[in-house]
Amino acid sequence: MSEKKVIKVGVIGAGRIGKIHAESLATRVPGAVVAAIADVNLAAAQDLADKLHIPRVYADYREIMQDPSIDAVAICSSTNTHADLIIEAAAAGKHIFCEKPVDHSLVKIDKAIEAVKKAGVKCQIGFNRRFDSNFKKLRDLVKEGKIGDLHILRITSRDPAPPPAEYIKSSGGMFLDMTIHDFDMARYLAGSEVEEVYAIGGVMVDPAIGAAGDIDTAVITLKFTNGAIGTIDNSRQAAYGYDQRAEVFGSGGMAATANNTPNTCVYSNADGVHSEKPLYFFLERYMDSFVAEMREFITAIREDTVNPVTVEDGRKPVVIAMAAKRSMEENRPVKLSEIK
Amino acid sequence: MSEKKVIKVGVIGAGRIGKIHAESLATRVPGAVVAAIADVNLAAAQDLADKLHIPRVYADYREIMQDPSIDAVAICSSTNTHADLIIEAAAAGKHIFCEKPVDHSLVKIDKAIEAVKKAGVKCQIGFNRRFDSNFKKLRDLVKEGKIGDLHILRITSRDPAPPPAEYIKSSGGMFLDMTIHDFDMARYLAGSEVEEVYAIGGVMVDPAIGAAGDIDTAVITLKFTNGAIGTIDNSRQAAYGYDQRAEVFGSGGMAATANNTPNTCVYSNADGVHSEKPLYFFLERYMDSFVAEMREFITAIREDTVNPVTVEDGRKPVVIAMAAKRSMEENRPVKLSEIK
Amino acid sequence: MSEKKVIKVGVIGAGRIGKIHAESLATRVPGAVVAAIADVNLAAAQDLADKLHIPRVYADYREIMQDPSIDAVAICSSTNTHADLIIEAAAAGKHIFCEKPVDHSLVKIDKAIEAVKKAGVKCQIGFNRRFDSNFKKLRDLVKEGKIGDLHILRITSRDPAPPPAEYIKSSGGMFLDMTIHDFDMARYLAGSEVEEVYAIGGVMVDPAIGAAGDIDTAVITLKFTNGAIGTIDNSRQAAYGYDQRAEVFGSGGMAATANNTPNTCVYSNADGVHSEKPLYFFLERYMDSFVAEMREFITAIREDTVNPVTVEDGRKPVVIAMAAKRSMEENRPVKLSEIK
Amino acid sequence: MSEKKVIKVGVIGAGRIGKIHAESLATRVPGAVVAAIADVNLAAAQDLADKLHIPRVYADYREIMQDPSIDAVAICSSTNTHADLIIEAAAAGKHIFCEKPVDHSLVKIDKAIEAVKKAGVKCQIGFNRRFDSNFKKLRDLVKEGKIGDLHILRITSRDPAPPPAEYIKSSGGMFLDMTIHDFDMARYLAGSEVEEVYAIGGVMVDPAIGAAGDIDTAVITLKFTNGAIGTIDNSRQAAYGYDQRAEVFGSGGMAATANNTPNTCVYSNADGVHSEKPLYFFLERYMDSFVAEMREFITAIREDTVNPVTVEDGRKPVVIAMAAKRSMEENRPVKLSEIK
Repeated sequence: MSEKKVIKVGVIGAGRIGKIHAESLATRVPGAVVAAIADVNLAAAQDLADKLHIPRVYADYREIMQDPSIDAVAICSSTNTHADLIIEAAAAGKHIFCEKPVDHSLVKIDKAIEAVKKAGVKCQIGFNRRFDSNFKKLRDLVKEGKIGDLHILRITSRDPAPPPAEYIKSSGGMFLDMTIHDFDMARYLAGSEVEEVYAIGGVMVDPAIGAAGDIDTAVITLKFTNGAIGTIDNSRQAAYGYDQRAEVFGSGGMAATANNTPNTCVYSNADGVHSEKPLYFFLERYMDSFVAEMREFITAIREDTVNPVTVEDGRKPVVIAMAAKRSMEENRPVKLSEIK
Repeated sequence: MSEKKVIKVGVIGAGRIGKIHAESLATRVPGAVVAAIADVNLAAAQDLADKLHIPRVYADYREIMQDPSIDAVAICSSTNTHADLIIEAAAAGKHIFCEKPVDHSLVKIDKAIEAVKKAGVKCQIGFNRRFDSNFKKLRDLVKEGKIGDLHILRITSRDPAPPPAEYIKSSGGMFLDMTIHDFDMARYLAGSEVEEVYAIGGVMVDPAIGAAGDIDTAVITLKFTNGAIGTIDNSRQAAYGYDQRAEVFGSGGMAATANNTPNTCVYSNADGVHSEKPLYFFLERYMDSFVAEMREFITAIREDTVNPVTVEDGRKPVVIAMAAKRSMEENRPVKLSEIK
Repeated sequence: MSEKKVIKVGVIGAGRIGKIHAESLATRVPGAVVAAIADVNLAAAQDLADKLHIPRVYADYREIMQDPSIDAVAICSSTNTHADLIIEAAAAGKHIFCEKPVDHSLVKIDKAIEAVKKAGVKCQIGFNRRFDSNFKKLRDLVKEGKIGDLHILRITSRDPAPPPAEYIKSSGGMFLDMTIHDFDMARYLAGSEVEEVYAIGGVMVDPAIGAAGDIDTAVITLKFTNGAIGTIDNSRQAAYGYDQRAEVFGSGGMAATANNTPNTCVYSNADGVHSEKPLYFFLERYMDSFVAEMREFITAIREDTVNPVTVEDGRKPVVIAMAAKRSMEENRPVKLSEIK
Repeated sequence: MSEKKVIKVGVIGAGRIGKIHAESLATRVPGAVVAAIADVNLAAAQDLADKLHIPRVYADYREIMQDPSIDAVAICSSTNTHADLIIEAAAAGKHIFCEKPVDHSLVKIDKAIEAVKKAGVKCQIGFNRRFDSNFKKLRDLVKEGKIGDLHILRITSRDPAPPPAEYIKSSGGMFLDMTIHDFDMARYLAGSEVEEVYAIGGVMVDPAIGAAGDIDTAVITLKFTNGAIGTIDNSRQAAYGYDQRAEVFGSGGMAATANNTPNTCVYSNADGVHSEKPLYFFLERYMDSFVAEMREFITAIREDTVNPVTVEDGRKPVVIAMAAKRSMEENRPVKLSEIK
């Protein structure tokens, strides 16, 4: 591997997730360097550059697109820019890592897919949970046949606290904003496509979420083309913190994951037996998976292999989310083929 | 309590479940004696009587009904006799313990309910799982407000092996035969009535079950009148054995049960870390709950309190099962009010 | 087995442990009946007899000894009577179940051993923990070679609350009264004899125990003849209840047991993740093992096999306890061969 | 904190542990930079420098000592150089992080302590396990009084595989090489000094270790000045991997840690219930603690506070190890006051 080219990455966006990816690429991903960082907030970009020895810093991401020495971009800007930036990067011949979701519009997603296909570049979408060691183990067991034929799939995904009602309004709704990860996880674990969705939900956590036109609690049933049945339950607020579990059940056996905790200590006293709550939220819980997805992105470029989450994989959960929304509105199961 | 009357029970049926209840009543239920046992298979009844010091043994259960010294009957005969025996026992003024399900026909169940009401006797249905210490703890936490407002309820109920296809034919179908326990558990845990059901299922375990007109795998979604959402998943065959778990989630927290195992030993070797499979099937898993339900039945008679599972509680899961069946057949959510 | 003789047992002592054994023998041990019960407190014996359908009730245990129809006795009287009753029962040709410890004097124990040997009767000592499903599993793994050569053995044994200081005075000291079970467990799990003991301890729980000349906390190291090393830790008071665990470690792997709890429910809220304390004390924790030891006692008689805990097994832990006491007093490792 | 000085660290040694510390300091420790690295193997130092943007690279560590711009050194060279390098660094006015053990000779350790004291620099010894989140939680519970008065302390520390017999010869013996971590942990958890030691051990894993004059299995009992009793069990080879657990028990309760695993997945099939083995060895298991100890070292310098593991803390476990060795050789408890 020592002869392989070092991949020069330009990071677009120096916000929360941009920082995470820049730091991973700079310090924990072999074969990658961060060659440039861009953010309209130039000071934020400069701070990160200083800390991580990033040589070039821009207010305008187009300088990255135009730099012929840059091999790849990491798109960490706001959701509404994703599709356009994918199209621009593809046109510039850059490999692309893009945060999820690609977009809320299938039309825009399809344009991005088209651009990527035409340019022949790699485009990996940031469904980081696939790289989490718990869920990866479930997937491995399914792939290795240890579960046999998959019959039932269960995902529990509950946040520790709801986002501000302000955020809710532009989020696209819970299915597109939060459950999108679970829809991707369902496809990933099952190794099969979703065919039909039935969703029910309600406002149980915060009336302000309902006032913003969204729900905060849901149970979704999925029919897969391979015959398996899936169920996802979501809440915007679990009193005990971030609850992220999954279970696969089939003819050969069952596998389930538990939450990760800050330590394994169990304390027993006169009141009972006590252990730690789950790691607080996605930054704590999924940090290793953010590093792992970047490693695989860089490896796929260096070894010219198919990357593990394609831009098509970015489209499918959006379709499932749309079907779930319609199902809930019309109180009936909705086939994915109904979504245009 | 020593001054309270000892309750004389007549056990009808000396089969598998009859033996269990007779033994519990004879040896582990304070305040009860088994005064008589009846079975058309007189030899089976006699064997049990010898072992348990039961003074009177009959081939004809009517001798129990006619014996004025008998306070209560335990109906452990086949399902198709339950409703009639309840009616007969009520007419004879006996308190009644009756195995589940009461019947597959709502008409017959309603007659039994009417008879019990008219006679003013107690009638407890054998939903023994309510008395299991795991599920009882969940219910207690809900009742004590530790879960807050209930938002999501999950039940996993999977058998270690399917019954013979022959049995399937007369079973009333998986929802009435197997899921009935889970429907009761859902009502019990939620402390609320089911309003609407959506069920999907399939034949994944054994084609013979499909040939017999039944399914062997299902996922059912429940809407409760208190706003909570429930999900049940069932399989007729879990490779690792009898899987009986539940989880309640609400504004105040979450509580979940794990399976019971024959021992707590954990063995670690070069291949991994290994522990025991769940207790094999309902006899091993729920033995303590069979004793506990009898204790509560006898206590309710002696202290003249409402028994914990009434004959009305025996009716409701049958209605949910019927709604689930229709939902699956028509692939749409079905309201319980649609079931007549 | 149906042709085998039913064993008629006479129970001597209707106190706490006598009640347990009488009830097991009467209701849960196939092939046994309780033919008689004796206690100087005749009312206690009569109450038990009424409940369990025991035909003969005596104030004087000698009536049991003299009854030729009695096959076996269960000695459940106070410790100071054990050795004499064993000798008397052996002389009368009865098989013997005797509660632990046999005696605090090796001279008396040796006389009892001699009497049993001469009479050729079976004599099982009540080390019930060997029949607990957790510890039995550890022993099975050792016997099956799953642990390989045993290297390290660890036993944790802590009571929920100390006995009254009054009891302490006549108890023989913690090693003979409490640790005796752990010494037996160590021999059982290791399948090897103890060669040398090093014990340190102190008064940490209750000064009254110290005033009574005893300790309440100890750590004991054991050298086994097979080369393994064992460690036992004891406390008379664990705030969280009865802590009964063991671990075996060897060339092939490790196995450890956890405590048993009243239910498997795990409750998560804003304060943490909570589960149940261990079952309160030995009656709750070891009830099944009391039944199991009786079953094996009766089976050994009916099938004329060696019973699983012989009277010699009753002597050895007493020797270890004496060595432990001397070790602590002299602050040095003590060989068992030093104990005469 | 932004105004605080950035600490310039010179790393001495570019071997396995040197790499770990250099990488932590360069990428994961706020307020630190690696200003220079030295190794007689200049190529190894250069590789690391390239990867981590370290500006100066030397074959001779003295260049670091003489560089006035360097604030602190991290001594990651072989054990026999530790004491001399501490003395040299102290003389040069550098703060010191030094890997454990300080030395095998108390005379040399005392000279190093003297030098540090005289220079008034900070000197932190690399007992990284104190910074592990599991053990830190135990310590916190003890400190917060949640355990009450400490009565019993248990440490299990077993390696996945023994080092080569060649290494054994120069290791100082198992107590100084391996158990030294556990002796430090015992002091740390108990918050009290060890007064007396009793150790027994043997060669159970590999006769070559015995031929090299060492043991591979041991159980050590510790008496603390606060009255608590500790027990440590060690093995050079656990078939299931790196076993690192501890338990504290006292008047208020008990706390215990479990091993860390690569994922939380539990797989159930017809053979049983299976989960992952512990993380393989110290690099995997303790990586976060290596980062955490460096963070605290740098913070102690920047905020001029006492660092959490002083050079005196580096001496004490060496004394305990010597007492343990003598105890085993003479088969008697040895007081620490006997070690000169």
